[in-house]
Amino acid sequence: MTIENLSSNKTFGGWHKQYSHVSSSLNCTMRFAIYLPPQASSGEKVPVLYWLSGLTCTDENFMQKAGAHRIAAELGIAIVAPDTSPRGEDVADDEGYDLGKGAGFYVNATEAPWRHHYQMYDYIVNELPALIESTFPVSNKRAISGHSMGGHGALVISLRNPERFTSVSAFSPISNPSNCPWGKKAFTAYLGEDSKTWRNYDASILMREATQKVPGLVDQGLADDFLTEQLKPELLEAAAKASDYPLEVRLHEGYDHSYYFIASFIEDHLRFHADHLQR
Amino acid sequence: MTIENLSSNKTFGGWHKQYSHVSSSLNCTMRFAIYLPPQASSGEKVPVLYWLSGLTCTDENFMQKAGAHRIAAELGIAIVAPDTSPRGEDVADDEGYDLGKGAGFYVNATEAPWRHHYQMYDYIVNELPALIESTFPVSNKRAISGHSMGGHGALVISLRNPERFTSVSAFSPISNPSNCPWGKKAFTAYLGEDSKTWRNYDASILMREATQKVPGLVDQGLADDFLTEQLKPELLEAAAKASDYPLEVRLHEGYDHSYYFIASFIEDHLRFHADHLQR
Repeated sequence: MTIENLSSNKTFGGWHKQYSHVSSSLNCTMRFAIYLPPQASSGEKVPVLYWLSGLTCTDENFMQKAGAHRIAAELGIAIVAPDTSPRGEDVADDEGYDLGKGAGFYVNATEAPWRHHYQMYDYIVNELPALIESTFPVSNKRAISGHSMGGHGALVISLRNPERFTSVSAFSPISNPSNCPWGKKAFTAYLGEDSKTWRNYDASILMREATQKVPGLVDQGLADDFLTEQLKPELLEAAAKASDYPLEVRLHEGYDHSYYFIASFIEDHLRFHADHLQR
Repeated sequence: MTIENLSSNKTFGGWHKQYSHVSSSLNCTMRFAIYLPPQASSGEKVPVLYWLSGLTCTDENFMQKAGAHRIAAELGIAIVAPDTSPRGEDVADDEGYDLGKGAGFYVNATEAPWRHHYQMYDYIVNELPALIESTFPVSNKRAISGHSMGGHGALVISLRNPERFTSVSAFSPISNPSNCPWGKKAFTAYLGEDSKTWRNYDASILMREATQKVPGLVDQGLADDFLTEQLKPELLEAAAKASDYPLEVRLHEGYDHSYYFIASFIEDHLRFHADHLQR
């Protein structure tokens, strides 16, 4: 397993670094970014927050726009930001921004032409943490968070792997993808017409049936253009209520779907995860 | 004078907004961004920090990447980020990233084909503040800062207009443009071959001769690829020493020319300006 360093920037006393590696889950070369806080330079094994980005994003959006390094440096948490889909010229794609490259939806595709590369669920759950933990001075304490499509990914992955993550959070997640246009389009393409196969990738369905429970925090802006048609946090909240899931959903007047919203509240998310990672 | 609102995002309890307007100095339509802290929504007239960006940037880079809104919200300071050159199809341009669009260098061009539009000095010193102060709930207390080419702009503009700004700061400024490749290329094009006309746009020359003095803060990364050939902070420091100018120059091991560096230290700059703006 070779890994190539592409860039390094000192930030808040730690380091932001981009790497490329050949992914065996995705059958292509992938790029990811890691923020290593100052504590990691002094030999300490730090816990890791995985951040899953939304539609059209790469590893760069969160690192550049969220303002998270300051708090991660204070708390001694590494942050890993993977890409949002397999990449490369031979990777299947679609004209829409909401399917194909930049829109992997964190599922293992079962349908042609997607299934050869689009195995983002396996990549995030297994391959990437194994690579991170064998390469960097990090512990095996993990938390997970994300935005929009990545909020969906973070919730689904923590709900299905509660033993692997101490805590989960999301900004503006696609809460019930089986039941919204973005989710229906992606799941039909990647998983096929039979919506029974979609249930394993739907946070509102999984949370309703959850037994082993990882504490959760969700922030949602009330001026988000996608709130009513695509995101539907009220369905996730209802699912949490039904299974007595420890989920806090916070609604914020005036905030939209942008990184300005994420930046405004990322500090709360990092402190929430730090509380659980450091137990 | 009409002004059109292009976007609005709530951030840290305040608002990031983009506007377009027809500039009489620049003879074209310009875009700028403003961050209005929460205090501005409750009728308070807040002071303004003008941020001048570097080569290739627009109004967006600082607003998205610097992580400044959090501190501006706490301190009750508005931030205005203009574009870095005139814009539009009929505006003269060059193939290089360091001349023409995105590279106005905050000068009033005297040479063809630039002089019709490239009057960025007048735009930043007079037209834009007049527009801001007649449109938004801001006071006439102003500070100025910038990065690289914008650090040069901030220093020059405050040195020539000490009565208009309470304080100046810069990240990685082009400290002595008469004496580096970026500056020589731009000044030759915009101002002509006679380097005597360049002196009014050279911070190290102006600072050496300064009488009315505005407090200054400069941060420079020591891993900045442009440090030795283009930036030369030691010449600015020498000029400050010669005129007993109240300038602090801080050198930072390991930091580069990117916004990760700016984000790491922008809090210090905002607190520095707040101390002077609120006197």
